[in-house]
Amino acid sequence: MKRIITLLFIIMLSCHDNKAPVLEDQTQGIALQNEAIATSDQGNIVLVLHGGASYPTPTRNNPTRDSIIKEVMGRALIAGRDTLLKGGSSTDAVEVSIQILEDSPFFNAGKGAVFNGEGVNELDASIMEGKERKAGAVAGVKQIKNPINAARMVMDSSDNVLLVGEGAERFSKLKGATLVSNDYFFTQDSWDELVKAKKENNEKLPKSPIEKNEKFGTVGAVALDLGKNIAAGTSTGGRSNKRFGRVGDSPIIGASTYADNRYCGVSSTGWGELFIRNAVAHSVVSYVEFKNSGIQEAAQWVMYDKMKGIEGGIIALDKEGNASFPFNTPVMNRGYITLTGEPKVFIYK
Amino acid sequence: MKRIITLLFIIMLSCHDNKAPVLEDQTQGIALQNEAIATSDQGNIVLVLHGGASYPTPTRNNPTRDSIIKEVMGRALIAGRDTLLKGGSSTDAVEVSIQILEDSPFFNAGKGAVFNGEGVNELDASIMEGKERKAGAVAGVKQIKNPINAARMVMDSSDNVLLVGEGAERFSKLKGATLVSNDYFFTQDSWDELVKAKKENNEKLPKSPIEKNEKFGTVGAVALDLGKNIAAGTSTGGRSNKRFGRVGDSPIIGASTYADNRYCGVSSTGWGELFIRNAVAHSVVSYVEFKNSGIQEAAQWVMYDKMKGIEGGIIALDKEGNASFPFNTPVMNRGYITLTGEPKVFIYK
Repeated sequence: MKRIITLLFIIMLSCHDNKAPVLEDQTQGIALQNEAIATSDQGNIVLVLHGGASYPTPTRNNPTRDSIIKEVMGRALIAGRDTLLKGGSSTDAVEVSIQILEDSPFFNAGKGAVFNGEGVNELDASIMEGKERKAGAVAGVKQIKNPINAARMVMDSSDNVLLVGEGAERFSKLKGATLVSNDYFFTQDSWDELVKAKKENNEKLPKSPIEKNEKFGTVGAVALDLGKNIAAGTSTGGRSNKRFGRVGDSPIIGASTYADNRYCGVSSTGWGELFIRNAVAHSVVSYVEFKNSGIQEAAQWVMYDKMKGIEGGIIALDKEGNASFPFNTPVMNRGYITLTGEPKVFIYK
Repeated sequence: MKRIITLLFIIMLSCHDNKAPVLEDQTQGIALQNEAIATSDQGNIVLVLHGGASYPTPTRNNPTRDSIIKEVMGRALIAGRDTLLKGGSSTDAVEVSIQILEDSPFFNAGKGAVFNGEGVNELDASIMEGKERKAGAVAGVKQIKNPINAARMVMDSSDNVLLVGEGAERFSKLKGATLVSNDYFFTQDSWDELVKAKKENNEKLPKSPIEKNEKFGTVGAVALDLGKNIAAGTSTGGRSNKRFGRVGDSPIIGASTYADNRYCGVSSTGWGELFIRNAVAHSVVSYVEFKNSGIQEAAQWVMYDKMKGIEGGIIALDKEGNASFPFNTPVMNRGYITLTGEPKVFIYK
């Protein structure tokens, strides 16, 4: 009973607007969910989301948490889709949906960002549109409430692509971004995770690239608007206990984010350094371009062949409304929506 | 006479070691040089260098300056080649040769780095090796004498790929990098360029992506060692009058730098934002990978088709010792060397 009350309370806290939480299922039977996209939906998908690829753990993945994640992702999908229905651009839809995930403490982005090794939150985000292939990104920012907004500002209001640190913050402030104190990003979960990592490593950095209990809640979105333009975006707090100044793949165009109307849009999540070294997002696009393949073949080749043994996941969407979600961890928070259907959100394989 | 004395004096200043300056030609007839690589050298090239793609201008390109550039690049090629002859890795050769270019005030990297819009030098560099595709990079550093050394330290001594700002400096210091005051990077040329940009733009940022008189002296190298391993690296001061915190393509793996033993190594130079948005270095590698082409076809397709109308250049080297140097500006400082030959350095088309 106490658990149900807690769940209801947390869901209420999470519902900042009046949209009903849309759950693909309740907390039972999640492990039986099919990761496959319904055949009838392929060709009609307008927005795909991810909320990180990871492992199920007692603290990280449990029915209560899973329900909240599904509620927030469902709400983000609906908000993005409604933006598209009103004639908004795919860039608008990506920004709106990622912002909702950033505002939830249950993802490793925005509010829920993990701590670096010095107990500070340094956030990264990027966005790209596929018509002119314009892009914007920020990295290592500590005071921007929604890094995806700042990335959009860099794309729209500067001749730059990537701004880092204080320069990125100064620019974003000038353009009207909401600034917060770094304390805003405090969550007990993220702090506990840092303390645990410090303890386990005797204050040294983790040796294993992926701790089984690590928070892998990077978020990303790819959208297709009524004008058939694709956009993609990614936002993260990086890795818990990361080195001060470390930048992962999320703000790197070509690593985590890429969009090209001719081929597809991509957002990825996983062990950032390996995703940079393998230019994951651009690899999917290049495969489609040079092999003249569909995105499913391309995304699966990158995740299951090229990145074999490297944990993470990819979401991809093409201009025909076909999507693909390959991942090679037990868990990837992911979902999609068509123009007229219900949001579909999945967590486990 | 005065000019000749000046020239000799500057050459003396430039020759920090005792290697004789190796000039492909003297100051006459430069415009007639052939950009093509000698057919007899293809298949035997072990190191290629670039020192930026740009325009000839009264202050930037003149016989005196051209001679110095050729001398320094010749010296860098010899130092890199000698490293390889002694059994050094391609990564060693890339680092050694780029460091020599960084130490010269005549390139926009290290000592000669341009100023950002606030009169500060913020430097970027990256390095990647093609066997395991490990990589390291630093961005927005103000006190590291040789950013290419710091990039190497990130690759070799951390589990990260990209470190930015103060975090990058703190890490590099810990690993023994030479730190200098930001004043070290002052050169009158760079300062004059900033003042000019500020004046021309009434303190606003330049609107044109490439000012015809802008310093485009980013440096890069690709090497092939006796073990047939490829490495690539790039180092820059960015764009004169750039926004504080702006990061260009040079430290971005996939944009400016990429190396994969199976395909090729690449370093590029040009309008950074467009090189990021087009994932230039990784595009060359993907073209070779998926089209099963030679590097000349790949590099030329990227520079002349994909990047048509966008100014810059690419250097590429494959494991067979074949090189390619496509560029679409009137000037690209570039050169190559074989294991036994003289360094060949070219400036104009």
